[in-house]
Amino acid sequence: MVSRRKRDGVGLIALDWGSSSLRAMLIGADGVTQDVRSSPHGASTLTGGAAAFEAVLDGLIADWRDAMPQVPLLACGMVGSQHGWREVPYLACPADAPALAAAALTVPWRGAAVHLLPGLRCESAAGMPDVMRGEECQVLGALHLEPGLGERSCIVMPGTHSKWAQVSKGTVIGFSTHMTGELYAVLRAHSVLGRLMPVETESVPQAFKAGVLLARNDGGAGLTHQLFSVRTLGLTGHLPAVALPDFMSGLLIGHELRAGLGWRGQARLGDATLVLTGEPALCQRYATAFELFDMDPVPVLPNTSGVGMWRIASQELFDAE
Amino acid sequence: MVSRRKRDGVGLIALDWGSSSLRAMLIGADGVTQDVRSSPHGASTLTGGAAAFEAVLDGLIADWRDAMPQVPLLACGMVGSQHGWREVPYLACPADAPALAAAALTVPWRGAAVHLLPGLRCESAAGMPDVMRGEECQVLGALHLEPGLGERSCIVMPGTHSKWAQVSKGTVIGFSTHMTGELYAVLRAHSVLGRLMPVETESVPQAFKAGVLLARNDGGAGLTHQLFSVRTLGLTGHLPAVALPDFMSGLLIGHELRAGLGWRGQARLGDATLVLTGEPALCQRYATAFELFDMDPVPVLPNTSGVGMWRIASQELFDAE
Repeated sequence: MVSRRKRDGVGLIALDWGSSSLRAMLIGADGVTQDVRSSPHGASTLTGGAAAFEAVLDGLIADWRDAMPQVPLLACGMVGSQHGWREVPYLACPADAPALAAAALTVPWRGAAVHLLPGLRCESAAGMPDVMRGEECQVLGALHLEPGLGERSCIVMPGTHSKWAQVSKGTVIGFSTHMTGELYAVLRAHSVLGRLMPVETESVPQAFKAGVLLARNDGGAGLTHQLFSVRTLGLTGHLPAVALPDFMSGLLIGHELRAGLGWRGQARLGDATLVLTGEPALCQRYATAFELFDMDPVPVLPNTSGVGMWRIASQELFDAE
Repeated sequence: MVSRRKRDGVGLIALDWGSSSLRAMLIGADGVTQDVRSSPHGASTLTGGAAAFEAVLDGLIADWRDAMPQVPLLACGMVGSQHGWREVPYLACPADAPALAAAALTVPWRGAAVHLLPGLRCESAAGMPDVMRGEECQVLGALHLEPGLGERSCIVMPGTHSKWAQVSKGTVIGFSTHMTGELYAVLRAHSVLGRLMPVETESVPQAFKAGVLLARNDGGAGLTHQLFSVRTLGLTGHLPAVALPDFMSGLLIGHELRAGLGWRGQARLGDATLVLTGEPALCQRYATAFELFDMDPVPVLPNTSGVGMWRIASQELFDAE
C-alpha cells in the first residue's frame, strides 16, 4: 500500500521502462523530479526473465532503494508487456488514474514490491485494436501540469509510435497510434531512400517544411507514392543529399498530421485543446508541422511520464490488489 | 544499326538488367522468346565499372554472341543508371518507342555494341519528378501483345517500386510510382511488425483480403496509423502470426490502389483500359485487390519487357546516334 507521504522528501521512485531504455526518476512528495538516472537496458533488450530486470535495478538504483525503504516503486512501459518482467494485461478505455492504479500488478525486488502499470487498449472506428504502454502516464502527467486539459483535450505524443489521445473529464476515452518514427528509422537505415542520405544528420528546416506541405497537399496521391519523391528529388538534384532526411521526416509527420487531424475531427475534438508532450526537439518539429497546417500554435510540454506516475501513485489504490 | 532481319531466326538479344538481377532473352525475329538465362549480378551488385558488366555478360551469354554475331543487343533497366554500365539520361514523357530507340547509348562488348535504353521521367501533379528504368519496355511489350491498349490505357506494373503508366496513342504520357514492394520488404525484415511474423511465408488469402478492405475503407485513418494494426491484431490474437504477412501485404497494396485509382481518375483514365503486367503471382494479388475495390476483372499479362525491347529494336532507329 502507498501511504500518504509528507509534502517534503521523496514520494516515489518512478521507472519509465520502455523497449529500448529505462529512465529512473526520484520524485518528491510534491511531484517534482529530484533526480534522474538512465540505462540502455530497455525491456526488449533483456532476456532471462525476472532476474534480468532485477539485475538492471540492482545496478542502477539499489542505493535509492536502500536509503529510502519506505518509498514506493512504480513502473510503466514495455516492462509490463508479454516479454517484460511480468505481463500486466492492457486496461480497456475509457480509463482514468484510479483505474490504472487499481490494475497494477507487483513483482518483488530487494524486499520491496515494484508496481507495474497495465497500459491501455481501445478500438478504432474501423474495429482495429490499438494499444499503448507508458504513454498513459504522459497523458496523466500532462493533465496534472495543465489541469485545463482534463476537461476535454487531444494530447499528441510524438515518437517511434506516436499516440494521439482523446481525454474527457480526466479520463482517456480512446487513442490512435501512428508508426511515424519507426517508418522514418527503417526507411532511412534499410531502404533505397536512405542510400542517398548522408550518415550525419543536419537540420534543413526548409526541406522539412517542403515535406510537410507535400503531405498536406497530398490530394489523394498517398504515402506509398509520395515517399518515392525522396528518391527522385535526390536523383535529379532538386534537393541536396543533406536535405533528404528532413524532407522525408516532414513527409511522414505531415501524413501523420493529415490522418491525426481527421481522427480528431471524427472524435469531435475539433474545438478541444491540442497539446504536444514528449522529447522537446521532436515536439518542436510537430509544432512546426501544425503551423504549416494553418493551426494555432500548439503548446509543448516536456516528457510528463514521471509526473503521471506520481499522480497515479497518489491514488493510493494499490491496496486494491 | 539494326538491320531488318528475316522473320525466322534470332532477331534480338534482350537484356532486362535491373538492380538485383539480370535476365537475358534470345528473341526471335517474330518477337517470340526462344531462350532465357538469368544471373544474380544485378546492376547495383556490381562495382568496378564497365569491366564488371562485361564480365557478367562474358559468363552468361558469350556463346550466344559468338554464335550470332549479327544479332543486335539491347538492354534496359538500372544498367543505364548513374551507377550502371554507362549513364543514359532519362527521356522526358511523353515518349514512344521511336524516341526510346533514338535516345539509346552504346557500350562496346566483344566487338559488338550493346544499346542501353534511357528510361523515362515525368512530373507529378504536385510537381515532383518521377522516374522509371526498365518498366517502359514492359509498357511497350504490353502494347504489342494487346494492340487495343495503345489507344488509351492505364498499365499497372506491380513490384518493388510499382508503376502506373498512362498510355495514349502508343505514347507514355506519364506515370506514378508506389514504393509498395519495398515498404513490405523493409517493414517485414526490420520493423516491429516483422518481429511477430514467422520466417516461412504461407498464403492466407482471407488475411490479404482483410488488409485490402481495411485500406479501402480507410476513411482518412492513413497508412501510418493502419500499419500499426498489423501489430495489434497479432498481439491480441485476432490474427495468427502466419496471417500477418498477407494482412500487411493487403494493407499496403490496398493503399496503393486507393491512391493509384485516384491518380487514374485525375489523369482522366477512368474509362481507359486497365491491365496488369509483371510477375504473375504478384499480378494475381493485385487482380484480387482490384476486385475488392469493386472493379471489373483486370486482365494480367506476363512480364512483357522482352517483347517491349524487341519492339524498340524494330524501330531501326539506333543509327540516329
